[in-house]
Amino acid sequence: MAEKSVYNFRVEPQQVDFTLRATITSMIEAVLNTAGIDAHGKGFGVDALNADNHSWVLSRMAVELDRLPAQYAPYAVATWISDYGRVLSTRNFTLADAEGRIFGRAVTQWAMIDLAKRTAVDLSWVGRAHSEAIVDAPSPADKPRKIREVTPMRMWEHRVVYSDIDFNRHVNTLRYIEMMLDMLPVEKLTCERPMRLDAHFLHETRFGQTLRIGCEERGETDLFEVKDDGGVAAVRACIEWK
Amino acid sequence: MAEKSVYNFRVEPQQVDFTLRATITSMIEAVLNTAGIDAHGKGFGVDALNADNHSWVLSRMAVELDRLPAQYAPYAVATWISDYGRVLSTRNFTLADAEGRIFGRAVTQWAMIDLAKRTAVDLSWVGRAHSEAIVDAPSPADKPRKIREVTPMRMWEHRVVYSDIDFNRHVNTLRYIEMMLDMLPVEKLTCERPMRLDAHFLHETRFGQTLRIGCEERGETDLFEVKDDGGVAAVRACIEWK
Repeated sequence: MAEKSVYNFRVEPQQVDFTLRATITSMIEAVLNTAGIDAHGKGFGVDALNADNHSWVLSRMAVELDRLPAQYAPYAVATWISDYGRVLSTRNFTLADAEGRIFGRAVTQWAMIDLAKRTAVDLSWVGRAHSEAIVDAPSPADKPRKIREVTPMRMWEHRVVYSDIDFNRHVNTLRYIEMMLDMLPVEKLTCERPMRLDAHFLHETRFGQTLRIGCEERGETDLFEVKDDGGVAAVRACIEWK
Repeated sequence: MAEKSVYNFRVEPQQVDFTLRATITSMIEAVLNTAGIDAHGKGFGVDALNADNHSWVLSRMAVELDRLPAQYAPYAVATWISDYGRVLSTRNFTLADAEGRIFGRAVTQWAMIDLAKRTAVDLSWVGRAHSEAIVDAPSPADKPRKIREVTPMRMWEHRVVYSDIDFNRHVNTLRYIEMMLDMLPVEKLTCERPMRLDAHFLHETRFGQTLRIGCEERGETDLFEVKDDGGVAAVRACIEWK
């Protein structure tokens, strides 16, 4: 049985907004980059999988941020895999400040896809091959919640350009997060309220497509849906402001 | 007299495109982040200046990239200040691979502004106060060239959103670079030709403005101009493909 892995970072100037605190996006970026660093270091990163024409794809994500650290504040991201299901593996995170106080939690669920067939791979063999990588600790927050229906009150269009796409030629996760957050008033993004984001990545979008991002305000919750130019839902997400 | 400072990095998965080599933008980001890390470490970073209501503003930049390193390749960024003029200070960079071979060079020129008056500060005192930070080594490439006139053949509009702006509430440098590169065919951005970028940052742009990005192809050179919604040129840039 493995231990949680801990990676140390510092809030760099490029991660803060005019409040001089880290942006929500930069903390989600830290979480996702840590997933990549940890998987690579343990031999089951995207690079190792690509040799077999496989890749990890983020399917669902939940991120809770109680507060956003200030510029130059050190922080530590702990990460661990708690289980491999047949289709999804669960990778968890906590974010802690220099005093060890946890200010953020994340639960991510990843599928492995066959890049040639574009289908999900049965993960049972990964669970067996890498069982020593599983940590016997529960997820630090509720697993990502389903978002069934979004009725947009505001819409925005975005044509997918080169700087939006990742090594898989798909729009990268952080760009979706930015597109959705950019629909909200700046005051909301800088209000220092604890928040929880749930996101489902349903369908890939590609270079040249025109996406439609819709936003619905429902009390203390903002819901989002990104559709491709065929009207297919690519991402649904929800932010709950506490 | 100081020595060049060297910072070690690795090409992370979030820095590569589908060619699995670093993007041009990610190498420019490494250069600019290194400037911030070095200035902060030496006590004249944006954070120290902000205490006096001053800030560094990038005025001109030249970046030469002979090739783009592959995913997970280690690289080192060396940086040094070669002079403080009255208005501009010059910070230089080289990028080297694990064998010490230089594959990139950059020359950046920075002004210091008074955030209240929005005017440039005379840098003579900085040159005196931090004369020990100056390194007696020439710039590794020609200083940024002037770009006098751009006659756009293609135009694109971009409304400035929250994720575009920096701690100064202005569009951040890397977003301008992305907006301009996104005007080019993907084939050009992934063609592995050595290139040189010159950019002049003439005027700040802000949240809510609608920018017009124009692109002119002139032989082996692409020229760019970003104008704000009042028609004022905010950035002019030029990429020479070798």
